[in-house]
Amino acid sequence: MTLPELQASEWLNTREPLRLADLRGRVVVVHAFQMLCPACVSHGLPQMQRLQQVFSPEDVALIGLHSVFEHHDAMTSAALRAFVHEYRLSFPIAVDRPGQPGPLPQTMRALGLRGTPSLLVLDRAGRLRLHHFGAADDLALGALIGRLLGEPPSAAAVDDRPPPTGEVGEAAGCGATACAVPGR
Amino acid sequence: MTLPELQASEWLNTREPLRLADLRGRVVVVHAFQMLCPACVSHGLPQMQRLQQVFSPEDVALIGLHSVFEHHDAMTSAALRAFVHEYRLSFPIAVDRPGQPGPLPQTMRALGLRGTPSLLVLDRAGRLRLHHFGAADDLALGALIGRLLGEPPSAAAVDDRPPPTGEVGEAAGCGATACAVPGR
Amino acid sequence: MTLPELQASEWLNTREPLRLADLRGRVVVVHAFQMLCPACVSHGLPQMQRLQQVFSPEDVALIGLHSVFEHHDAMTSAALRAFVHEYRLSFPIAVDRPGQPGPLPQTMRALGLRGTPSLLVLDRAGRLRLHHFGAADDLALGALIGRLLGEPPSAAAVDDRPPPTGEVGEAAGCGATACAVPGR
Amino acid sequence: MTLPELQASEWLNTREPLRLADLRGRVVVVHAFQMLCPACVSHGLPQMQRLQQVFSPEDVALIGLHSVFEHHDAMTSAALRAFVHEYRLSFPIAVDRPGQPGPLPQTMRALGLRGTPSLLVLDRAGRLRLHHFGAADDLALGALIGRLLGEPPSAAAVDDRPPPTGEVGEAAGCGATACAVPGR
Repeated sequence: MTLPELQASEWLNTREPLRLADLRGRVVVVHAFQMLCPACVSHGLPQMQRLQQVFSPEDVALIGLHSVFEHHDAMTSAALRAFVHEYRLSFPIAVDRPGQPGPLPQTMRALGLRGTPSLLVLDRAGRLRLHHFGAADDLALGALIGRLLGEPPSAAAVDDRPPPTGEVGEAAGCGATACAVPGR
Repeated sequence: MTLPELQASEWLNTREPLRLADLRGRVVVVHAFQMLCPACVSHGLPQMQRLQQVFSPEDVALIGLHSVFEHHDAMTSAALRAFVHEYRLSFPIAVDRPGQPGPLPQTMRALGLRGTPSLLVLDRAGRLRLHHFGAADDLALGALIGRLLGEPPSAAAVDDRPPPTGEVGEAAGCGATACAVPGR
Repeated sequence: MTLPELQASEWLNTREPLRLADLRGRVVVVHAFQMLCPACVSHGLPQMQRLQQVFSPEDVALIGLHSVFEHHDAMTSAALRAFVHEYRLSFPIAVDRPGQPGPLPQTMRALGLRGTPSLLVLDRAGRLRLHHFGAADDLALGALIGRLLGEPPSAAAVDDRPPPTGEVGEAAGCGATACAVPGR
Repeated sequence: MTLPELQASEWLNTREPLRLADLRGRVVVVHAFQMLCPACVSHGLPQMQRLQQVFSPEDVALIGLHSVFEHHDAMTSAALRAFVHEYRLSFPIAVDRPGQPGPLPQTMRALGLRGTPSLLVLDRAGRLRLHHFGAADDLALGALIGRLLGEPPSAAAVDDRPPPTGEVGEAAGCGATACAVPGR
């Protein structure tokens, strides 16, 4: 399964918008978050920063996706910029384009994200290999990335089953491990 | 030293504004924070929640003070309400009244706070007994509160020296342990 | 309730054996542990080291009590010395005197300890004010010590009820929070 | 570089001694530790337990190597068995055979280990691909294992340079991150 391009109203930490198609050849990690999602702040974003320390940007491209599905008036572009500054996030971040109608932004809806944090990992050929909702384990995530890095960019033999989807037992709203979209 | 009343433009988690004068007889802990201050989110606010679990509200009154001195357009009242909801903060929170002119809000200026997180502890007689900037240690904070709880409300023999002031070695801006007001 | 003297076959980190009677005037914290008790190593002993940093030895006397009730041949005096060296423990430690007959050492039996870690806190007059089995919270422990430090050494008005006893839901053997003596 | 077989005086958690030669086809992680090495207890052994949860034993073989180079009389076989029981370690553990003469056990000497914790990772063909002294990062370790899992067992094209060696800045003795062999 190939991911559609991210629909962003704005990008931070990059001079130009990123296109997944241009990142072919690299492993891509997309971390969907909200700045007011406690588990994103305590776990997901620090994990992205650790990924940044461990992997070369030529091997692994990191993208934050700010997918606001609640408290839209609090998590504005200005607020996100302040947040990114104070938390010293330096990887590229796409602001998910607001949806019409409804609270879910466009990329979140297109990708079927269940809430935040969500982690999507694409192989060198651009295929979705992990779609995880909730906190992801460092060892398991590292192992997946390591395995994908070892695959040739144009590997044809990869199975085409839908990627494993992490499960968290959260009701709608934010809990200790995630913020869930109601009704998903 | 007696603390002047908090200058709040708004209160959360309480039906009526709190007055320090009305809290005489209890130990009072005031935690000055900003919702985008990383050390407040990772250390100061969780400590307030632990205080809430350990002490009876009849013994210890807890007050959050949202003292925004930077990123004013990001840390609005609406944003704070969303933050308080998502982080499940249930103790009373005063929104520090904006200053005129300058970025420092009024209570922050009046109290001479050096940044966030700052912790102020008042004894049963309303006297300031700790003014700490940066992360405060649980054991030391617990010991101070325990000692103050053991003092009679009208103790006259307390020394009148200025309270100990915690020091953090932060430059202006937010670091791992605090956000410092420039020039303090 | 006054505590009987500790029955020690040996003391570490002190030139002379300590007697509780000689420590009157100070708050005394006794931490019963075993070097192979995981919760003692991860929580109890680091807490003793934090107590050592926060409180003056003239105010608070800290004593470790190595109460071995299982794996006696593994937790020998020689092993304890190596452990104390590697973990850089510098507070006085009493080696609980082996019991005859049965696996429980003498002080452990005399004090009715339910397992390790156990925390005993004595006030300045030598009365037992806390008897806690399992991990103790820093804020609550600090508050108790602070309160006791504020009491006069010969306070007569202290209630004489048995001290609160912490409860942990551990079966016999070692779990995440404690090692429990079978049948207690 | 192929690793010589581990010289063990005894094995725990396995009915028969393990031979590295028999593990060809799997990735092998050897964790050298001492039961009284603080960094092994707080970091290295929990990491082995996380590895056990994340990877299938058919993919990754985990081996503990108890390489005692100090406090030999404290870290006996009986003590290790008690330790393994209390910490609930269930992966196979080899007791490094005592050296003659000198304090270093035989496998430790043969492998040139600098202290504990040390982590050795072998690929499916039995070649040493990581030799790390000190705490290893979960993401980086996961990535290496993932990459090795993706390699065919008989890959011929692997470079033959010595594996990267982690460096820790520890003097002899035990510090926060490792126990170092004197003079290495």
